[in-house]
Amino acid sequence: MAPYMAEWDEKEIFPVETMRKAAQLGFGGIYVKPDVGGSGLSRLDTSIIFEALSTGCTSTTAYMSIHNMCVWMIDTFGNEEQRRRFCPLLCSMEKFASYCLTEPGSGSDAASLLTSAQRKGDTYILNGSKAFISGGGDTDVYVVMCRTGGPGPKGISCLVLEKGMPGLSFGKKEKKVGWNSQPTRAVIFEDCVVPVDNRLGAEGQGFSIAMQGLNGGRINIASCSLGAAHASVLLAQEHLSVRKQFGEPLANNQYLQFGLAEMATRLLAARLMVRNAARALQEGRRDAAVLCSMAKLFATDECFGICNQALQMHGGYGYLKDYAVQQFVRDIRVHQILEGTNEVMRMIVARNLLQG
Amino acid sequence: MAPYMAEWDEKEIFPVETMRKAAQLGFGGIYVKPDVGGSGLSRLDTSIIFEALSTGCTSTTAYMSIHNMCVWMIDTFGNEEQRRRFCPLLCSMEKFASYCLTEPGSGSDAASLLTSAQRKGDTYILNGSKAFISGGGDTDVYVVMCRTGGPGPKGISCLVLEKGMPGLSFGKKEKKVGWNSQPTRAVIFEDCVVPVDNRLGAEGQGFSIAMQGLNGGRINIASCSLGAAHASVLLAQEHLSVRKQFGEPLANNQYLQFGLAEMATRLLAARLMVRNAARALQEGRRDAAVLCSMAKLFATDECFGICNQALQMHGGYGYLKDYAVQQFVRDIRVHQILEGTNEVMRMIVARNLLQG
Amino acid sequence: MAPYMAEWDEKEIFPVETMRKAAQLGFGGIYVKPDVGGSGLSRLDTSIIFEALSTGCTSTTAYMSIHNMCVWMIDTFGNEEQRRRFCPLLCSMEKFASYCLTEPGSGSDAASLLTSAQRKGDTYILNGSKAFISGGGDTDVYVVMCRTGGPGPKGISCLVLEKGMPGLSFGKKEKKVGWNSQPTRAVIFEDCVVPVDNRLGAEGQGFSIAMQGLNGGRINIASCSLGAAHASVLLAQEHLSVRKQFGEPLANNQYLQFGLAEMATRLLAARLMVRNAARALQEGRRDAAVLCSMAKLFATDECFGICNQALQMHGGYGYLKDYAVQQFVRDIRVHQILEGTNEVMRMIVARNLLQG
Amino acid sequence: MAPYMAEWDEKEIFPVETMRKAAQLGFGGIYVKPDVGGSGLSRLDTSIIFEALSTGCTSTTAYMSIHNMCVWMIDTFGNEEQRRRFCPLLCSMEKFASYCLTEPGSGSDAASLLTSAQRKGDTYILNGSKAFISGGGDTDVYVVMCRTGGPGPKGISCLVLEKGMPGLSFGKKEKKVGWNSQPTRAVIFEDCVVPVDNRLGAEGQGFSIAMQGLNGGRINIASCSLGAAHASVLLAQEHLSVRKQFGEPLANNQYLQFGLAEMATRLLAARLMVRNAARALQEGRRDAAVLCSMAKLFATDECFGICNQALQMHGGYGYLKDYAVQQFVRDIRVHQILEGTNEVMRMIVARNLLQG
Repeated sequence: MAPYMAEWDEKEIFPVETMRKAAQLGFGGIYVKPDVGGSGLSRLDTSIIFEALSTGCTSTTAYMSIHNMCVWMIDTFGNEEQRRRFCPLLCSMEKFASYCLTEPGSGSDAASLLTSAQRKGDTYILNGSKAFISGGGDTDVYVVMCRTGGPGPKGISCLVLEKGMPGLSFGKKEKKVGWNSQPTRAVIFEDCVVPVDNRLGAEGQGFSIAMQGLNGGRINIASCSLGAAHASVLLAQEHLSVRKQFGEPLANNQYLQFGLAEMATRLLAARLMVRNAARALQEGRRDAAVLCSMAKLFATDECFGICNQALQMHGGYGYLKDYAVQQFVRDIRVHQILEGTNEVMRMIVARNLLQG
Repeated sequence: MAPYMAEWDEKEIFPVETMRKAAQLGFGGIYVKPDVGGSGLSRLDTSIIFEALSTGCTSTTAYMSIHNMCVWMIDTFGNEEQRRRFCPLLCSMEKFASYCLTEPGSGSDAASLLTSAQRKGDTYILNGSKAFISGGGDTDVYVVMCRTGGPGPKGISCLVLEKGMPGLSFGKKEKKVGWNSQPTRAVIFEDCVVPVDNRLGAEGQGFSIAMQGLNGGRINIASCSLGAAHASVLLAQEHLSVRKQFGEPLANNQYLQFGLAEMATRLLAARLMVRNAARALQEGRRDAAVLCSMAKLFATDECFGICNQALQMHGGYGYLKDYAVQQFVRDIRVHQILEGTNEVMRMIVARNLLQG
Repeated sequence: MAPYMAEWDEKEIFPVETMRKAAQLGFGGIYVKPDVGGSGLSRLDTSIIFEALSTGCTSTTAYMSIHNMCVWMIDTFGNEEQRRRFCPLLCSMEKFASYCLTEPGSGSDAASLLTSAQRKGDTYILNGSKAFISGGGDTDVYVVMCRTGGPGPKGISCLVLEKGMPGLSFGKKEKKVGWNSQPTRAVIFEDCVVPVDNRLGAEGQGFSIAMQGLNGGRINIASCSLGAAHASVLLAQEHLSVRKQFGEPLANNQYLQFGLAEMATRLLAARLMVRNAARALQEGRRDAAVLCSMAKLFATDECFGICNQALQMHGGYGYLKDYAVQQFVRDIRVHQILEGTNEVMRMIVARNLLQG
Repeated sequence: MAPYMAEWDEKEIFPVETMRKAAQLGFGGIYVKPDVGGSGLSRLDTSIIFEALSTGCTSTTAYMSIHNMCVWMIDTFGNEEQRRRFCPLLCSMEKFASYCLTEPGSGSDAASLLTSAQRKGDTYILNGSKAFISGGGDTDVYVVMCRTGGPGPKGISCLVLEKGMPGLSFGKKEKKVGWNSQPTRAVIFEDCVVPVDNRLGAEGQGFSIAMQGLNGGRINIASCSLGAAHASVLLAQEHLSVRKQFGEPLANNQYLQFGLAEMATRLLAARLMVRNAARALQEGRRDAAVLCSMAKLFATDECFGICNQALQMHGGYGYLKDYAVQQFVRDIRVHQILEGTNEVMRMIVARNLLQG
């Protein structure tokens, strides 16, 4: 993907065909069970794959990680009919999925979401809207958290919507700092009719499904940060070796050498955090959710710092769009914000420490 | 300028008319002497003005600060004829100026520049090129450092070129992370003929002129960082007060409150550093150059951190181009790099400490 | 003081005679009015003096700064009789003063203090205790905040106690990380009888007096941090120049050079913050209290970092008590904690930002 | 050990009997082969053990880790006779060992050491001195690097000296910031006669032996930092839960909660770095030395920060010797300096990145 990342960014192209090729390698449903087209790999494998892919294009890989999270949710919480209906087409990326939790009025406090789903016969009537939806408008399948019951997390259910359903529409395409190879739009429900058969799990189980999806999602997005940081370290290393000032390569400057050493050290620490959380999640350890939060917090913060320092090492070139390092900086900036801001990660970890 | 900054950024508009209006207020030659159209204000006044303007549009203000530096150089080192020929038109911003020091092969090590100026009768023949020139191609007057003598700083002279001179051309417009309201291009000299009368100061004085210009330039660019950070703190403060999560304004979160307190504290420290350097430069203190370097290092580093933290406080909104905070982050990122990278600032300060 | 700081630290000597010599130079009541023996200097002068003194011994200077704060409180809020009774002996440091606000159960939340003063005729009967009192037990005059009325800040009054009053006793001498040249003890009141004539200001005015004292106290303690950091930078600079590794002075290492540059830069920023607050307090500016809090927060945090980095630059020698740098680190560590923790400073600044 | 750490610190007691009890549990030669009394455990086990022990007393555990390194060096590079002569008594801690590499004039640049060993018949005559020797004077066995050949690392050999050898003496006991339960002295050789039979490995192999010892040593010392940080996090957590301000536990402050979350997150990252390096060293991976350097750099820097933040969370109590947290801060401060300063760690990592 590396040769195209700049173009996809500039022209805001959602690279559907490239992703489908990746899906042929099994990257459309990496940790989805094989009987519905998934690759059946572990969370650790998934992390390694996303890290590698995101060295090519972080934004595209990040979208793919969200797609994978959605497919896994359907695979895990769907009934057989749902699994067979949705997963194969999603694993092959014939169809693309979006995850719809955040609302204009509820970001960090996801459990207060307002989108309502009124039961009417064997359908739900949805009203409300979702904000910041990756892929929104260009994707086919929407995994939507909505309120079927009372306030709080217990009143939330999870429905799978399909593009074309009456009452489903989309906001304008957002202009963003990065993540430009994936469209972001609001998703709007106006008396949108959804069959009850499209509900994943039981009524009231939606918030739990959403959070379990996010555990993996956080590892995935942190893995994308690793890839961006890894690529940035390599770019900086090469730039320092090639670029000369004062008659010698920049790499001869001890300050820059030590900077590079710190970047590599912090990258390794971030990688170990992510791998550790992936293993814990795979093994179903009780502290998996906290470890995922720690990994997401640590890796996305440190990797942004690493990419930003790599940009600085490029001098003026680092500010030009001809050089990839600035795109890694722009693309991963949002990883500190989404799938739970890093402030929410601190909250989750703190709660665990003080109540545990 | 604030209402236009997003548009200028998106459409990459060099807002010539707006700047000319600012020039009517005296902002085209703030610290230039009044007899040639300047405002005759102090460095401290200049710093305060640039800080205020850059809350409206940092990128545009930053270009204006470079323009001012150029006019000051002509005013200070030019002879009477040169002062009268160039300064009035520049102070009114009928014409715009660019500062041409950096070359593709010499950034931090400016004294190694290669652009040659061969004396031929009462002209110089220039060959070579300059990189990362703010305003390049769209501006009218180019203050160019070139080699008229042997290697090193002593062989450098300063010539004033005008657009339209034969042999003067420009590279493609660079795509950048920010600073999009000012074009950046390479400036190319191919047997470019420049009258000797266009030389500022004596032969061999060019590097000294360039560095003296940069002392003020560093205060100016640091002042632009202050403005961006100030605006970002206000934006964050307002966002935290308005945006609700968990049933109350974000501003009720102690972690965010304390973060805001630190941002305001660091901004004040940065401002005091810049004001202190401006005063020292105005008074011609011996340590002025070091104080300018310290101020540039401290203010541009801290203010980037402040803007970036303000972006984080906006959550997902901070990543959208509809919100100004991200533009401040993108615009001031380059302040840590140009007019001497912050690594060069450390070098200047260290040299002073260890040799003093 | 520099030749003695190590000995005073090791043997925990309260250097009474040395301080009295300093008092002869006017340092016992620097910003106290001359008619009662003070030097009548400004807050800015005071800051400069404490910075200079603390390069010699931070711990001793820090105590002197507390003593000065107490004398100023008596000078400012005392009536003529009180001023004449206490100030001359304190300005000459014939007698020493302690500031008694913090209690075992109320540190940051000073307004919740419990020490009670029951009015009985023309005396108050005090019961309760104070914690972490600098000079406690070795000093003569105790400026004590106690509760004469209801809960909260409005119920607090300020009494001046003298050693030897019945019912006044002291806890054991605390063992501390630093600040060893000044004793720290609890101060205990058991039916301690204090004449009403010893009350500063009106009943209920005590908390206001305490806070006004602390505004200056915060500048003073921040100034002591400046001195410690200044001395540490000089020590590091000398060590780097003298100590050789790999056949050349450590100072030839670019990483250490740049580190030194950052330390000097941050020290200057801290100094400007302190001077700025001192000027604001002197001029009675409305935002003086916030500026004092910002200065204390910034300077004590940054200066600890500077001293700690200077220690690191000393390698193994930095860990030995034969080298002064470690004592500066130990001594100023507590400046981030006392006279309001730096967490409380953030709270004050945040409150001002969000309510202003 | 926890109940005694404060006393050992204050009275500077080298707790010989306590360590011998630990040796009965196998902690005198953890990764030494069983045939000479070692426990035969892996590097990973060793790291876990030192982490656990150092929660009790970091200083004592750190000495034990150096002792273990020495025994491992004899076990690994000694011949059968040497192994049988020294290891059993050291594994049982009947005798204690010291590692003697650093000299007054060669710290980071260890390969430039000057202590000379002149061959004379079947003895070496040693002259020179070693600095900062942990245990020096109180221990029995000294593993000494000295120069038997030309300059540089190739001229260095490794001799095992025993207390009582003629010409072996010790400097004064150093006063230190921490690490007070282990004595530190210079070790002095004046025509000191050492049998050639006491040489570990071949002539010229000494530097390699020293460096291989340090790989494990760095993991060990980093593990001690983990223990100190772990204990400090627990102390902070408890203090925050118990201590009340403003009518509620400090733990209700979001700023402190989030701080605790970051400390726990960083501690986990540090732990994963150390474990990862331990595994690599155990498996003899080619990049083991670099991973050990990264782990030492990251863990000792981060853990100092964690302990220091835990101290801050204690408020004034954190500064008193009655509270353990300050001792952890003092004890681990030196971990950033010894067994290769963290600047040297950066150098090793940088060299690997830029030459690999």
